[in-house]
Amino acid sequence: MKPKLASLLTKGKALFLAYDQGLEHGPTDFNDDNIDPIYIIKIAREGGYNGVIFQKGIAEKYASEIKKSKVPLIVKLNGKTKLAPGDPISPGLCTVSEAQKLGAKAVGYTLYIGSEHEAEIFKEFEKIERDAHKKGIPVIAWVYPRGKGTEGKSKEELLAYATRTGLELGADIVKVHVDVDAKALAWAVKAAGKVKVVAAGGSKLSEDELISKVKEYMAAGCSGLAIGRNVWQASDPLALTKKLKKAVFG
Amino acid sequence: MKPKLASLLTKGKALFLAYDQGLEHGPTDFNDDNIDPIYIIKIAREGGYNGVIFQKGIAEKYASEIKKSKVPLIVKLNGKTKLAPGDPISPGLCTVSEAQKLGAKAVGYTLYIGSEHEAEIFKEFEKIERDAHKKGIPVIAWVYPRGKGTEGKSKEELLAYATRTGLELGADIVKVHVDVDAKALAWAVKAAGKVKVVAAGGSKLSEDELISKVKEYMAAGCSGLAIGRNVWQASDPLALTKKLKKAVFG
Amino acid sequence: MKPKLASLLTKGKALFLAYDQGLEHGPTDFNDDNIDPIYIIKIAREGGYNGVIFQKGIAEKYASEIKKSKVPLIVKLNGKTKLAPGDPISPGLCTVSEAQKLGAKAVGYTLYIGSEHEAEIFKEFEKIERDAHKKGIPVIAWVYPRGKGTEGKSKEELLAYATRTGLELGADIVKVHVDVDAKALAWAVKAAGKVKVVAAGGSKLSEDELISKVKEYMAAGCSGLAIGRNVWQASDPLALTKKLKKAVFG
Amino acid sequence: MKPKLASLLTKGKALFLAYDQGLEHGPTDFNDDNIDPIYIIKIAREGGYNGVIFQKGIAEKYASEIKKSKVPLIVKLNGKTKLAPGDPISPGLCTVSEAQKLGAKAVGYTLYIGSEHEAEIFKEFEKIERDAHKKGIPVIAWVYPRGKGTEGKSKEELLAYATRTGLELGADIVKVHVDVDAKALAWAVKAAGKVKVVAAGGSKLSEDELISKVKEYMAAGCSGLAIGRNVWQASDPLALTKKLKKAVFG
Amino acid sequence: MKPKLASLLTKGKALFLAYDQGLEHGPTDFNDDNIDPIYIIKIAREGGYNGVIFQKGIAEKYASEIKKSKVPLIVKLNGKTKLAPGDPISPGLCTVSEAQKLGAKAVGYTLYIGSEHEAEIFKEFEKIERDAHKKGIPVIAWVYPRGKGTEGKSKEELLAYATRTGLELGADIVKVHVDVDAKALAWAVKAAGKVKVVAAGGSKLSEDELISKVKEYMAAGCSGLAIGRNVWQASDPLALTKKLKKAVFG
Repeated sequence: MKPKLASLLTKGKALFLAYDQGLEHGPTDFNDDNIDPIYIIKIAREGGYNGVIFQKGIAEKYASEIKKSKVPLIVKLNGKTKLAPGDPISPGLCTVSEAQKLGAKAVGYTLYIGSEHEAEIFKEFEKIERDAHKKGIPVIAWVYPRGKGTEGKSKEELLAYATRTGLELGADIVKVHVDVDAKALAWAVKAAGKVKVVAAGGSKLSEDELISKVKEYMAAGCSGLAIGRNVWQASDPLALTKKLKKAVFG
Repeated sequence: MKPKLASLLTKGKALFLAYDQGLEHGPTDFNDDNIDPIYIIKIAREGGYNGVIFQKGIAEKYASEIKKSKVPLIVKLNGKTKLAPGDPISPGLCTVSEAQKLGAKAVGYTLYIGSEHEAEIFKEFEKIERDAHKKGIPVIAWVYPRGKGTEGKSKEELLAYATRTGLELGADIVKVHVDVDAKALAWAVKAAGKVKVVAAGGSKLSEDELISKVKEYMAAGCSGLAIGRNVWQASDPLALTKKLKKAVFG
Repeated sequence: MKPKLASLLTKGKALFLAYDQGLEHGPTDFNDDNIDPIYIIKIAREGGYNGVIFQKGIAEKYASEIKKSKVPLIVKLNGKTKLAPGDPISPGLCTVSEAQKLGAKAVGYTLYIGSEHEAEIFKEFEKIERDAHKKGIPVIAWVYPRGKGTEGKSKEELLAYATRTGLELGADIVKVHVDVDAKALAWAVKAAGKVKVVAAGGSKLSEDELISKVKEYMAAGCSGLAIGRNVWQASDPLALTKKLKKAVFG
Repeated sequence: MKPKLASLLTKGKALFLAYDQGLEHGPTDFNDDNIDPIYIIKIAREGGYNGVIFQKGIAEKYASEIKKSKVPLIVKLNGKTKLAPGDPISPGLCTVSEAQKLGAKAVGYTLYIGSEHEAEIFKEFEKIERDAHKKGIPVIAWVYPRGKGTEGKSKEELLAYATRTGLELGADIVKVHVDVDAKALAWAVKAAGKVKVVAAGGSKLSEDELISKVKEYMAAGCSGLAIGRNVWQASDPLALTKKLKKAVFG
Repeated sequence: MKPKLASLLTKGKALFLAYDQGLEHGPTDFNDDNIDPIYIIKIAREGGYNGVIFQKGIAEKYASEIKKSKVPLIVKLNGKTKLAPGDPISPGLCTVSEAQKLGAKAVGYTLYIGSEHEAEIFKEFEKIERDAHKKGIPVIAWVYPRGKGTEGKSKEELLAYATRTGLELGADIVKVHVDVDAKALAWAVKAAGKVKVVAAGGSKLSEDELISKVKEYMAAGCSGLAIGRNVWQASDPLALTKKLKKAVFG
């Protein structure tokens, strides 16, 4: 079944609110407000986000709040703590069926290209993608170059390799960390072909810096953002959201 | 099916009697009395514990005694000896179906975050959790930061990471070793969101020290205790139990 | 189904004839007589043993001889050569179903606690145990402390850890190498709770030494012996068997 | 079912257009034109290639363009990035069923003989081959000697070993990198027995050099080419294609 | 079902023609004649061999020639290249079902005792043996002591260990490399009990040397030969075959 991307997009673009940092980084990213998933759901609803990204645990325990918010749910299917030593691998923590029962409109999965576990990562991703596509659920691939195999490679080459991997492996949207200039980003977007490229927000920036970056991303051909800390760590998340939406959707 | 937590709780709180040390530590923790599971079942029954925690082997061989006691049975689904070298991993030793046949009202599973086996641990936990939740059986996650990846991290960060992992991965109760002050514990409880935090009893303390600690745990927002050695190594386990219940349930 | 132990026991005790050494040690243990499984079956039959222990290969190829002997068959389900390097692990070589078809009255499985493969060993054992117990077939666990994790531990602690592991993991009988004094053995037997402890015979001893040891084992609470080399390397295995039976059954 | 090779061949020979480099090498092989799969499909169609080789992701996202082109689709079932460290292994990224649904007329799979992962590679290949042959789908094995085990071996020995591995393992076509003289290549072709040998194009050469090499391959008994960079990096791919076809089909 | 050995034997003995060297050693063993499987099939047929041993790939591609020859087919189910580094392990490349469909009268499988992969090898062998015996197909175990665990052991001990492993694990015929004197070989044959021992031919010898060795093998109790290079590298394979048959069958 063709993945149903339309319900996740506005004019072909998307602004997603990411909140998988509790597992990936631990609660150090949080303060007394944003440690609470309900605070996040409120931002997602009032800000009119195209989706909110949770791990299964939060999606289950806060299912009624998520449902009431009507924000499309994106379940992140794999995850790891930052404590896990060695080259990264992020095991599946939720099946596509479970995500579907939780009402997910899309699923996410992180791949670390260049990791010594790349083969195992690709194999699990492949199965999850097949399961999702059978059900018409879009797959968002977080593709991050990491681990031993990335040493000595340029950021530009790695970014384009990441987006291209999204295309070659069959993702519907590829999420990447952008750390290159506009030209290199445009090349990476081109390398993704028909697959939409969404930029990660990354760690906290000044609002001006952030908005200027987002405009650059969009000009380079990105289809939007999956942003977390910059929004829910902001003093006024909704005011920032307005600016982000203008930068993303025009 | 929604996990049936209610039957395990008293006013939303719980005092569990843990007895999985025979496998985890070996019989060195035991004396001539408490080496016998029947002694433990007796304490659990007469003390009115919310549950008693056994490995499958004991749950099977002492099934009639456990049943007669009417203490809710919690089967610990995985385990390892302390002899196993290298970073910790605790393999599944009992399925959810077997636990259910044994009459388990909840199941437990230990996760070592920061272990080089974290990915494998998460994957097995994820399956067990799915099996349990399908049957409406609550899952208690023992989340212990251990192994190479925890070196150099603060106790405070690790504890909050542990409780948050319980939430993100979908546990119903998260059991942790508390080794931080009240403020850091309160933060860790908050990080767990809707998931209940239960403190491990740890090794033997003086009664006064123990009760004072338990009060601190409860004040910080914990939902109870899973305690073993302090109780069944006590000269008068039932007298101590009374004090513990007062500290936990008020 | 409850494991059917009764058919293997005499007054609650057992004398088993072990013959898995061909795989575990190679033929170096053998002479021109005892290299032949038929010689072993003859001893088991004429000596009135409670069971004879074979690997699948021998159980299959000598099925008619075994059947005719009416000695209860115990199939050892896993095994390894002594040549395999590194920490020990003994893979499954026969399923419970196959053992059942071969007429097995019990199955055996070796676990190496302290091995770096402990987790994998426990997982396979757990499955085999479940299969066996579904069919009412008793499981005899050979529990041997071995490998990196046992270094620096006392023999007394390791023995009690071994028997306790048998209980915690759900075995019906636990077979151990006894290398401690009577008091430590009694403690280890106690640690096993309702699980019967059977002593391995070990390498060849003088008859007097052996019988005196066996008496000590029984006095310490053991439920019998699983003995091989001392019997089938003896000049008169049946004469020795008589003495052993007296020591075991009284 | 007998693999249906005929639809892929012209007079028993084949000229395939390979485009799996986006995953294997990253986009560094590409320019503004050939980064786009549509450009490749156009060359394949207008050049009259016997097949075009894509990973699943491209085969899916560009399914309508591929179908319209009527070029036989060959789905490469496994792949890896060049970033993955250590001895090579290329995990399955698409099943035979998926490839079939995508309309594949053949499937491809890369095997690295001499890699420390050889056993795992062989096992996955074996399963894929069985699946494919059940459906009558031909299997093209990319057999590349790589990794620790190939050190110190001659190119001649390795090439013949590669083609022979294709025969012994049951491939229908074996694709190899030719880096030996005509005599050694003829020996390698002979070693493949009834299995057709197809030469990889490799990195960019001058047209004359390329055509002269191709003639040498065909004279040595090869059944054709699977060529990528030399074609889609050419200034006039169709002109080059004409020359290639003459060299291959005569 | 009882394995049907009779169709493979002449007076309880066997002369098999082995041709799995193309994968195990590469084509370096071959010349312009014997590189072609048809040449081998011809020798097997005209020489009246009890079986010819092929990998799946050759058994499939030359199925009609094999069928026409009426030589019993033995499919070697696992294999590896000699390039694979580290301790040996030979993965399954063909299932018992596939072998059966190809008309196999027996299947072969190589086990490396003493390899650090011994456990994994034993586990796969065990499954294949079960599959084969369910269908009444005899299993020939190539048992070769190899790898780290064999260092410092005597050839005599290793050979008897190999044949005994065949018995303990349930093979029907065990194939070994004989590199010991007649007495040690007789002991190894005895260690195999009811399992037939077949000697490998090994690398090329003078005819006289070979025949004299074969006579020694048979006198020591072997049930025949699985011979390859000595036959198909011979200038007159059929003349040699005659001598071999006389030495084997008398």
